[in-house]
Amino acid sequence: MNDRIRFLREKLRGRKIEGMIVSNPANIKYLTGIGSAEGVLLITRKENIYLTHTMFIEDVHSVLTINDEVIVMDYKDITKEEYENFFLFCENVGFEENHITYENYKRIKQKYKAHNLVETEKIIENQRIIKSDEEIEYIKKASEITDKCFAHLLKYIKKDMTEREVALEIERFFKTNEADGTAFSPIVAFGENTSKPHHVPTNKKVQTADPILIDMGCSYKGYCSDMTRTIFMGCILEEIKPVYDLVRKTQTMAIQDAKENNNIKAIVKSAENSIEFNKYRTMHTLGHGVGLETHELPILRPTNENLLKENMIITIEPGVYLPGKYGIRIEDTVLITKTGNKELTTSGKGYTVI
Amino acid sequence: MNDRIRFLREKLRGRKIEGMIVSNPANIKYLTGIGSAEGVLLITRKENIYLTHTMFIEDVHSVLTINDEVIVMDYKDITKEEYENFFLFCENVGFEENHITYENYKRIKQKYKAHNLVETEKIIENQRIIKSDEEIEYIKKASEITDKCFAHLLKYIKKDMTEREVALEIERFFKTNEADGTAFSPIVAFGENTSKPHHVPTNKKVQTADPILIDMGCSYKGYCSDMTRTIFMGCILEEIKPVYDLVRKTQTMAIQDAKENNNIKAIVKSAENSIEFNKYRTMHTLGHGVGLETHELPILRPTNENLLKENMIITIEPGVYLPGKYGIRIEDTVLITKTGNKELTTSGKGYTVI
Repeated sequence: MNDRIRFLREKLRGRKIEGMIVSNPANIKYLTGIGSAEGVLLITRKENIYLTHTMFIEDVHSVLTINDEVIVMDYKDITKEEYENFFLFCENVGFEENHITYENYKRIKQKYKAHNLVETEKIIENQRIIKSDEEIEYIKKASEITDKCFAHLLKYIKKDMTEREVALEIERFFKTNEADGTAFSPIVAFGENTSKPHHVPTNKKVQTADPILIDMGCSYKGYCSDMTRTIFMGCILEEIKPVYDLVRKTQTMAIQDAKENNNIKAIVKSAENSIEFNKYRTMHTLGHGVGLETHELPILRPTNENLLKENMIITIEPGVYLPGKYGIRIEDTVLITKTGNKELTTSGKGYTVI
Repeated sequence: MNDRIRFLREKLRGRKIEGMIVSNPANIKYLTGIGSAEGVLLITRKENIYLTHTMFIEDVHSVLTINDEVIVMDYKDITKEEYENFFLFCENVGFEENHITYENYKRIKQKYKAHNLVETEKIIENQRIIKSDEEIEYIKKASEITDKCFAHLLKYIKKDMTEREVALEIERFFKTNEADGTAFSPIVAFGENTSKPHHVPTNKKVQTADPILIDMGCSYKGYCSDMTRTIFMGCILEEIKPVYDLVRKTQTMAIQDAKENNNIKAIVKSAENSIEFNKYRTMHTLGHGVGLETHELPILRPTNENLLKENMIITIEPGVYLPGKYGIRIEDTVLITKTGNKELTTSGKGYTVI
């Protein structure tokens, strides 16, 4: 059995859970490597069983290794009795309450005749917070490709180009430069559109003096990167400079604070104070874990009481947004190390005019 | 109040449900036009209220019209008491059991102090099955752009090109030709990869005599198209021709059967018989509704007892897959009309060699 499944089984045992129904695709990928199929992983008393549709069977077999010890079954071939036998001698069967719909909850309760379905409180998502050496290598690589893309964009973006054209170029660059593709739909915003933190690229053309906000990341072997830069076309309006300086200062400070055993809550509060002391509003979280998903645990918000630990990978992305005017965000993907941290995305953060 | 919300309210009244929590983003988009925000729509006794995060407020206001009669509120500003007052005099409050996680179900039960949370059994998804004239126009347009893309690919694809290069060209074409972008990640498969119905494009290069399966669709004003063609590089292996003929014949027959008041179950069974009579296995459903989502109701499967109705838009996509060898699928987006139907995607389906 592979190490990740074995570790999960130990954790489950500690909670007196004898079986588990894993339905979150990112968790299935983490435990088995299966990434492009629809199915469910059953951790039963003695076996690991992946249930899927006929059309995915071929693909799934090509991914699994003998070491995984995962049995593959076709939904079509499973009888009512077999469903009821999967967890026959289990007192408690775990499920993913934050991933399964209410409807499916009712369905599995009936189908598996599980004695007692218990919530597992992101047990696997928590296991994923600390990255292995291999995972760190993949995220490093995804970050490098992202830096290269940014360097390319500095030369590529010209006056009158549209947000959509730039977004498309990002996608093209990633797909033709070793990445699997984008980790998420890139945000490209010009001028006043930069004030919307989750702006969707439009046909707006970039004009002289526009701020240009680019939030992008790619996926490499399934692992993500995430970086934001705000740059400027032709010149920087003087009124924007103090806001840019504030965001940059806040980000630098938060990265300095991002060390093993530092409290997430304290880091977030300090960054929010820095923004709010200047009478701006905090519009979103300070950051989040990055891995198989672009957004994963830990979430950097003021209610998170956990400590940062070595080999966590997180983003740090403060921003200031003035509706109808402009917005500034600076974001990096950061690896927590034994002695401090290492920024995995390394594109320049000084005033950048193109 | 807009017609869609009014119609929903009537349906809810008929089921003795006085309020509803709408959380499926496609349903929110359908009812309000809000497409690029995260939030929840509350249908209370007297009001329609959209709850969202600070960062989306600006965007949401730019989409809503006075006619919608939707009040926008920031999550941050809502007190515990306000949550409890939203459904104060409602006996039954509907929720979307097929969309909300088990965890959220428990959370909303507590937060809204709703007397009786009741399942709404895809009430809005069912409302979306019959398309309005405007929706039909958008899907027609998405289908036209898809046809144009296919015509472009026939000239574009050359020997030794990779699946990923072709997939990228599809994305580029859609984004630069009036579409919002792809409706889903295009499937591009060469040679034996065509035997995987949900293949993810790789760096495999196309070789002489390879079948080339392309499954793609774009989104236009939020509405999707979906089409599959299987074409050939240089020549068609003789052994493939009878399989191609079978799939094409099955699709033609199923499209002929796709008429107002015909039973979905009967259409599906007839198509499956056509495939299975020739000793091949059915690997996926015969088709599905298309609209704001690529896959929506109705699902064309042998257990669906419903009848087709005028102004439904569905796909018809039979396929035959021989693992390790090849697969053939032909799919069109089809509008059900008063007198029969109209294929909205119209690319040629004869043997196509490039």
